[in-house]
Amino acid sequence: MTEFDTVIHGGRIATASDVFDADIGIIDGRIAAIGEKIAGGVRRIDASGKLVVPGGIEAHAHIAQESSSGLMSADDYYSGSVSAAFGGNSSFIPFAAQHRGQSIADVISTYDGRAAPQSVLDYSYHLIISDPSAAVLEELPGVFARGITSFKVFMTYDLMNIGDGGMLDILTVAKTHGALTMVHAENNDMVKWMNKRLAASGLTAPKYHAISRPELAEEEAINRAVSLAKLVDAALFIVHVSTAGGAAIVQREKLAGTKLFAETCPQYLALTREDLDRPDMEGAKFICSPPVRDAATQAALWRHVQSGTFESVSSDHAPYRFDATGKFANGADAPYPRIANGMPGIAIRLPYLFSEGVAKGRITLQQFVALSSTNAAKTFGVAKKGTIAPGYDADIVIWDPEARRTATLADQHDNMDYTPFEGMEIEGWPVLTMNRGDVIVENGALKAERGRGRFIARNPVDLTGKPGYRAKELDPAQNFGVEIAP
Amino acid sequence: MTEFDTVIHGGRIATASDVFDADIGIIDGRIAAIGEKIAGGVRRIDASGKLVVPGGIEAHAHIAQESSSGLMSADDYYSGSVSAAFGGNSSFIPFAAQHRGQSIADVISTYDGRAAPQSVLDYSYHLIISDPSAAVLEELPGVFARGITSFKVFMTYDLMNIGDGGMLDILTVAKTHGALTMVHAENNDMVKWMNKRLAASGLTAPKYHAISRPELAEEEAINRAVSLAKLVDAALFIVHVSTAGGAAIVQREKLAGTKLFAETCPQYLALTREDLDRPDMEGAKFICSPPVRDAATQAALWRHVQSGTFESVSSDHAPYRFDATGKFANGADAPYPRIANGMPGIAIRLPYLFSEGVAKGRITLQQFVALSSTNAAKTFGVAKKGTIAPGYDADIVIWDPEARRTATLADQHDNMDYTPFEGMEIEGWPVLTMNRGDVIVENGALKAERGRGRFIARNPVDLTGKPGYRAKELDPAQNFGVEIAP
Amino acid sequence: MTEFDTVIHGGRIATASDVFDADIGIIDGRIAAIGEKIAGGVRRIDASGKLVVPGGIEAHAHIAQESSSGLMSADDYYSGSVSAAFGGNSSFIPFAAQHRGQSIADVISTYDGRAAPQSVLDYSYHLIISDPSAAVLEELPGVFARGITSFKVFMTYDLMNIGDGGMLDILTVAKTHGALTMVHAENNDMVKWMNKRLAASGLTAPKYHAISRPELAEEEAINRAVSLAKLVDAALFIVHVSTAGGAAIVQREKLAGTKLFAETCPQYLALTREDLDRPDMEGAKFICSPPVRDAATQAALWRHVQSGTFESVSSDHAPYRFDATGKFANGADAPYPRIANGMPGIAIRLPYLFSEGVAKGRITLQQFVALSSTNAAKTFGVAKKGTIAPGYDADIVIWDPEARRTATLADQHDNMDYTPFEGMEIEGWPVLTMNRGDVIVENGALKAERGRGRFIARNPVDLTGKPGYRAKELDPAQNFGVEIAP
Amino acid sequence: MTEFDTVIHGGRIATASDVFDADIGIIDGRIAAIGEKIAGGVRRIDASGKLVVPGGIEAHAHIAQESSSGLMSADDYYSGSVSAAFGGNSSFIPFAAQHRGQSIADVISTYDGRAAPQSVLDYSYHLIISDPSAAVLEELPGVFARGITSFKVFMTYDLMNIGDGGMLDILTVAKTHGALTMVHAENNDMVKWMNKRLAASGLTAPKYHAISRPELAEEEAINRAVSLAKLVDAALFIVHVSTAGGAAIVQREKLAGTKLFAETCPQYLALTREDLDRPDMEGAKFICSPPVRDAATQAALWRHVQSGTFESVSSDHAPYRFDATGKFANGADAPYPRIANGMPGIAIRLPYLFSEGVAKGRITLQQFVALSSTNAAKTFGVAKKGTIAPGYDADIVIWDPEARRTATLADQHDNMDYTPFEGMEIEGWPVLTMNRGDVIVENGALKAERGRGRFIARNPVDLTGKPGYRAKELDPAQNFGVEIAP
Repeated sequence: MTEFDTVIHGGRIATASDVFDADIGIIDGRIAAIGEKIAGGVRRIDASGKLVVPGGIEAHAHIAQESSSGLMSADDYYSGSVSAAFGGNSSFIPFAAQHRGQSIADVISTYDGRAAPQSVLDYSYHLIISDPSAAVLEELPGVFARGITSFKVFMTYDLMNIGDGGMLDILTVAKTHGALTMVHAENNDMVKWMNKRLAASGLTAPKYHAISRPELAEEEAINRAVSLAKLVDAALFIVHVSTAGGAAIVQREKLAGTKLFAETCPQYLALTREDLDRPDMEGAKFICSPPVRDAATQAALWRHVQSGTFESVSSDHAPYRFDATGKFANGADAPYPRIANGMPGIAIRLPYLFSEGVAKGRITLQQFVALSSTNAAKTFGVAKKGTIAPGYDADIVIWDPEARRTATLADQHDNMDYTPFEGMEIEGWPVLTMNRGDVIVENGALKAERGRGRFIARNPVDLTGKPGYRAKELDPAQNFGVEIAP
Repeated sequence: MTEFDTVIHGGRIATASDVFDADIGIIDGRIAAIGEKIAGGVRRIDASGKLVVPGGIEAHAHIAQESSSGLMSADDYYSGSVSAAFGGNSSFIPFAAQHRGQSIADVISTYDGRAAPQSVLDYSYHLIISDPSAAVLEELPGVFARGITSFKVFMTYDLMNIGDGGMLDILTVAKTHGALTMVHAENNDMVKWMNKRLAASGLTAPKYHAISRPELAEEEAINRAVSLAKLVDAALFIVHVSTAGGAAIVQREKLAGTKLFAETCPQYLALTREDLDRPDMEGAKFICSPPVRDAATQAALWRHVQSGTFESVSSDHAPYRFDATGKFANGADAPYPRIANGMPGIAIRLPYLFSEGVAKGRITLQQFVALSSTNAAKTFGVAKKGTIAPGYDADIVIWDPEARRTATLADQHDNMDYTPFEGMEIEGWPVLTMNRGDVIVENGALKAERGRGRFIARNPVDLTGKPGYRAKELDPAQNFGVEIAP
Repeated sequence: MTEFDTVIHGGRIATASDVFDADIGIIDGRIAAIGEKIAGGVRRIDASGKLVVPGGIEAHAHIAQESSSGLMSADDYYSGSVSAAFGGNSSFIPFAAQHRGQSIADVISTYDGRAAPQSVLDYSYHLIISDPSAAVLEELPGVFARGITSFKVFMTYDLMNIGDGGMLDILTVAKTHGALTMVHAENNDMVKWMNKRLAASGLTAPKYHAISRPELAEEEAINRAVSLAKLVDAALFIVHVSTAGGAAIVQREKLAGTKLFAETCPQYLALTREDLDRPDMEGAKFICSPPVRDAATQAALWRHVQSGTFESVSSDHAPYRFDATGKFANGADAPYPRIANGMPGIAIRLPYLFSEGVAKGRITLQQFVALSSTNAAKTFGVAKKGTIAPGYDADIVIWDPEARRTATLADQHDNMDYTPFEGMEIEGWPVLTMNRGDVIVENGALKAERGRGRFIARNPVDLTGKPGYRAKELDPAQNFGVEIAP
Repeated sequence: MTEFDTVIHGGRIATASDVFDADIGIIDGRIAAIGEKIAGGVRRIDASGKLVVPGGIEAHAHIAQESSSGLMSADDYYSGSVSAAFGGNSSFIPFAAQHRGQSIADVISTYDGRAAPQSVLDYSYHLIISDPSAAVLEELPGVFARGITSFKVFMTYDLMNIGDGGMLDILTVAKTHGALTMVHAENNDMVKWMNKRLAASGLTAPKYHAISRPELAEEEAINRAVSLAKLVDAALFIVHVSTAGGAAIVQREKLAGTKLFAETCPQYLALTREDLDRPDMEGAKFICSPPVRDAATQAALWRHVQSGTFESVSSDHAPYRFDATGKFANGADAPYPRIANGMPGIAIRLPYLFSEGVAKGRITLQQFVALSSTNAAKTFGVAKKGTIAPGYDADIVIWDPEARRTATLADQHDNMDYTPFEGMEIEGWPVLTMNRGDVIVENGALKAERGRGRFIARNPVDLTGKPGYRAKELDPAQNFGVEIAP
């Protein structure tokens, strides 16, 4: 047998299904063997007393991306990937965002230029489409062929909202090519109406952001997005679900057989609108959309995390600094609608989920693996990541379940000047992150070179065992034998 | 005691709550007394062996109204009111429809000109708003003051759809003034997308109308309309619910305390999409929106009629003849989207409901009264109609519960050249219709003069006992103590 | 026209459907006429500024009844009917209770002897069956023929619980003869298990009664009772629903078409288990079964009152004095299971419901009429009571909606030494009670003679418009064509 | 490295989470290594083109067990384990059944005597308790200590039904010691009532068994069992769910956080009551309880299999031959209640589930592994079986996914004279079964010695991540601070 490049020994391995004590032998960046005792190894890593899990896959992050108003995120692919790695991620899938009028080829080449020379971790993109013109729709098959098999659309923000008709067009293309459509679901008119009313009352402090985007706006939009997807029997992924009502719709539809996926984020489990009311404009740190809610919502979302409503808990890392380059680009006293929207979290996602989930007994270790890594790989077509098995990439993270830390900015290793989780007590911490056999972070030190990460070409979405829903009117058996052309 | 103008004697009276045998004494068009035996009366009407019920109030009819494409309905206020009277209605509330850009004052005066000289029955209007401009919104309080306390908006048809923002504006005005917003709920983009697909496949026969407006389009739009109303805690009335899913949303929300009202129509209980497949373009007779569905939907809607989901069963009388003045104004072989949309039914609504409901044991006689008259009066603020009680208008209909008829065009007494209910066996028939003490129809003969009907000034919507819903974000108690200006 | 014996003039009349201003003319104990202005009358009663409603029908009261342990209730048919009349009731339907082994003929004659000479109000009985032997089942048709068309069974108390098999036997007889089965639904084993555990821990103070009968015990038993009734497609009435979960089952099943009826009681809307924790054994005053719950349950039950889950709000008047003749018959410091079970409330039921319901805007006046009188008449087959209409008994109560009172024992006019509603502020009060044209109570004074009340022979239960459920296995169409003999 | 005893190479491995191509190295009956290419091995097994999955764990089988009426099952631990092995199972957990009055020590020693000398597979027992006397309850902790951590109780059959109180006693003991209570949930009185009615009508052919145990009987009993478990916050496992309504209750309660587990069986997915109507008493082959239902139920149960309502699909193997030793022990023309109750299926369970589940695209391969093996191991505390990972027992089955077979009796390898699945087309077949590294069945031949199987001592039930429900009345925080002794 070939000598192992690396052997991780003495640890307790967890997959989405199982927990067992075994060693791992790695060759050429792949997991070559898992065994009771594996001898040898050019390098031997002692994981005694530690947990050995598949490296996190961050599926929702804004990296080196301009907002629709043109503001560049604070993190590029270097700092973003470094922060992700410190947080226990072995790979990530940020967005490649189209500006209206821009060709998709141009979008991809722009982001290739931003990611390839910088990323320390393997990466892929979800393609954001803001302008589903005929020309764009024709470009999409080529994008899927390159291995970008998911995209994201918005039901909110005037510059991004593509309308119900645009969604139907995109869902139809996606269905035809096995791509997965992700959606930011908030009713745009509801938000605009609230903004107008709040402005008329002079209520523009950061905290009013929380009430400008009502829970109803998300719940309505989720229901609508699901309805659109059902009409054409296309798969749909609801990003950052923040409400009990929205999660209930997802649960109901999944149980009814709709091809539906969803995520929530740590901020919706950990923060409340009270945080937006902190003094001295500090509330601005907590402005993100949809907004953080309240304690009852947190409890409901945790129940949905436990019972399988969500495939993943993602970060929605959207880094805008608490200064004039970020939050206050429109002035230090800008009204809330002109404060940059988003918060960082790529490094804290997994420590938070482990600590509040596993350590507090809310979820099992296997659920943690599923929510942090395995489900993202399956949902987004990442063939060789997301579990610990022979033949898979050696994307592995070693956790110390006994470690106790207090969350600080310094631990985030991003380009930010704050973390919304500052001061939170954390139990359990990732002590080594590996991507394709390379140690990226170890004992708090970065070990990897800029640009070593590789692009991940992804498979089409796999809907095996997902029954799907077909509008009666589209079912030839029930409707005059008609087969309607897509 | 003053002598009675008319005494109806010997009949069995039904209200929405009770059934009892008694006579009715009428003075000056009002019910003056109800008693075991009432002597006297200038005229005595023998109702022995008959049922005596409050006259029907038709709350959904298109009379002397141009469609958004400019096609005038076949019935004016004379033929429309005559047909209604033959069908057991003592009053009706058609629509006064705004064209885009038209002032509301002009709309009202136009319809006053059409109705006052013609109607044989008392009438009021629901105001259709297609263009909720600032100027229009400012006109509305004046309209309410005149006693027009309901209006209708559309979520479909490009020329009528006012968008979610427009709905929020109108709901807010309505809430402030105690008006009730009615909504035609179908997702416009879904319908347009289906039309495009069907056209691309060359599927333009009348039957494809049935599949061009999917059940999902209604269900989605009902959910959205309810969400918009909940956001501002305004009352909402869903017209012509045609789907099991839509009815289920209405039921769920009513039970949860939302200020919600709804109706369905006989066509959704009696017809199916198979009717649209009749040969020789005859399917065009059955084109209406939302379209008629299938047998499973009929059964589900009947259950909702039984259990109180709907306030009313209305006709949605939209009379377009089966000729070049109506259905085929765009040509005898027009594709379905260019065939005039709507079907007549103002005269058959109550015979159908009595026959299939009461005679077949699906609903009680009291429910029939509620669904045909009482609830419409309460919901739309008609103070002195809708029941049989002293002080109320003598709007009374005598039914022969033993009569058996086969529905024919001749019985409809409208300006139409067909009835979609042709040939249906009917048990029970209205034999006398009275409005404010005047006999309008008796033994199949019209007894009233053109133009005798009067305008009904209506009260604001009464929401006593309706708890209502308020978006968390609008509740000062939970949100930083903010009271948001409307 | 014959002269009226009595005319009630100037009042505002309410039925379950309508509210209108009219006078009432009464002849021979019947309502003979309702009119705008009625002249004459041997007696004229001025109801100006008052509400005139159908007299309350109390459908759940224990009068002159021994408990299963042999304790006689404090109220006989005199004091019970007087108290009911002071509380705005014109009639009532207490229980005639079988002891095990007793023939039904003997039960009826025993209660006839107790009621006829004593009652100031019209009355009927629900027959309690504790022993559904073959002999008893054979007696039942004769009971129905006499006009006793409802009975009650228990799922709890060792001496009363007839078991699931006994229930099936009774439901089958009831179905065959059009009788209605009422059920006290609590899981007997759950209660006994809790009693054993509490006793083992030495927890026997009155407050532990509240935790000895868990909400689950009621919810489970309601579900089971409904399942038994569905198996044989028989009608069922759930008495004194005390839990949100139980009410939800009732609501769900009614919407699904089950022939189901239910009531709740003021104590479940007004009191909580904290009341059972009052010092000095005073908690014993609040011992009843099922026990009073908590504030969240109260809110949920009110929503069900509003939305039609319950036909009635009844008192479950079960009068045991706070002394050695009642609560403490087994000693002043008896453990809670040996304290007499039940509380009075026949006089406060309607003032409470009016005050907390109508005056506080939770329900409409029409709902009050339905919940207090009309629905009980319809459900239990009382042909000539329950509304104000010609030909009906002149069972009428005049309410002063402006009156404000503080509930006191003196106002109850029963044989009790306490009222659990002591000190409650009440808005609205019945100022005159009439039964068959006789004034029973007027301005706080009793006007009627002992024994004037008459037995009410009732009709079979009317299930028109109730679709019913039939177990698949009993439906010949689906099961080998079998018709199973009852 | 020690030489491997056996290497399985070239196959595609599946766990409950993952699918990957790898070899397996086995030492001393344990999986020692999993690797891309594993050389060596005393024996090398070629699994090229095959699937390699954890050996099935049959969790519901009646082996060498007397029925309550004393009839011994046709299979003993030899034939039963052989049949299981041919059907792709590496271990099983039959029942050890108490007769009323029998001590538990005696039960265990009896079954040890039956199993140890006979079984070719590892085995454990669920303990059936028919008589939860105080003495029995005191014996239970000793049973748990021995590694029997589950038992089963019955809500039906007069000789087995322990009543609600008995269930509460057992659930309480179970909760205290971490044991899992399994329940056969059918309402005994409903069944007896149906039997009485059917007998009265002379309907005693086998097919009437299907209607003697209505769906309502199961649904009611499941709801009751869950209520009892919730009262004491104990874990519960519902065996052989056969109804859509029952599955819906399980789903609802699991989502609400109840500690609930459930299974269904192939017969409820594959057979209908029409099978009971086969001529010449052949229907008797299909008599089992609860009975098989209809096509609509099958579809609903499949949806629940897909969506996670069930932990397992088990066989409920209850082998009674179609002769006088089994089905007709009470005569060849016995009425259905006297025909032996149960059907065989231990060998067909997994081929059926693979064929109809995986091959037909209803479930994923991972779901198959979970439903056939992993979940049973987790639910019933089998520490070292149920997945393929280092350190686990080498309990492995190799499947040929391309094999196509027609089910025949000969393939079952049990002691039966029929299989209810005769003639069913099957896609996929287990070609090698291994238990602790020993090949048991290979290419259709038995390779193991009688009595080689070992007893499996199981762990307490693990409820990590199961939130649980606690009756309000048992929660000290809400109830006067009381902690009730168990």
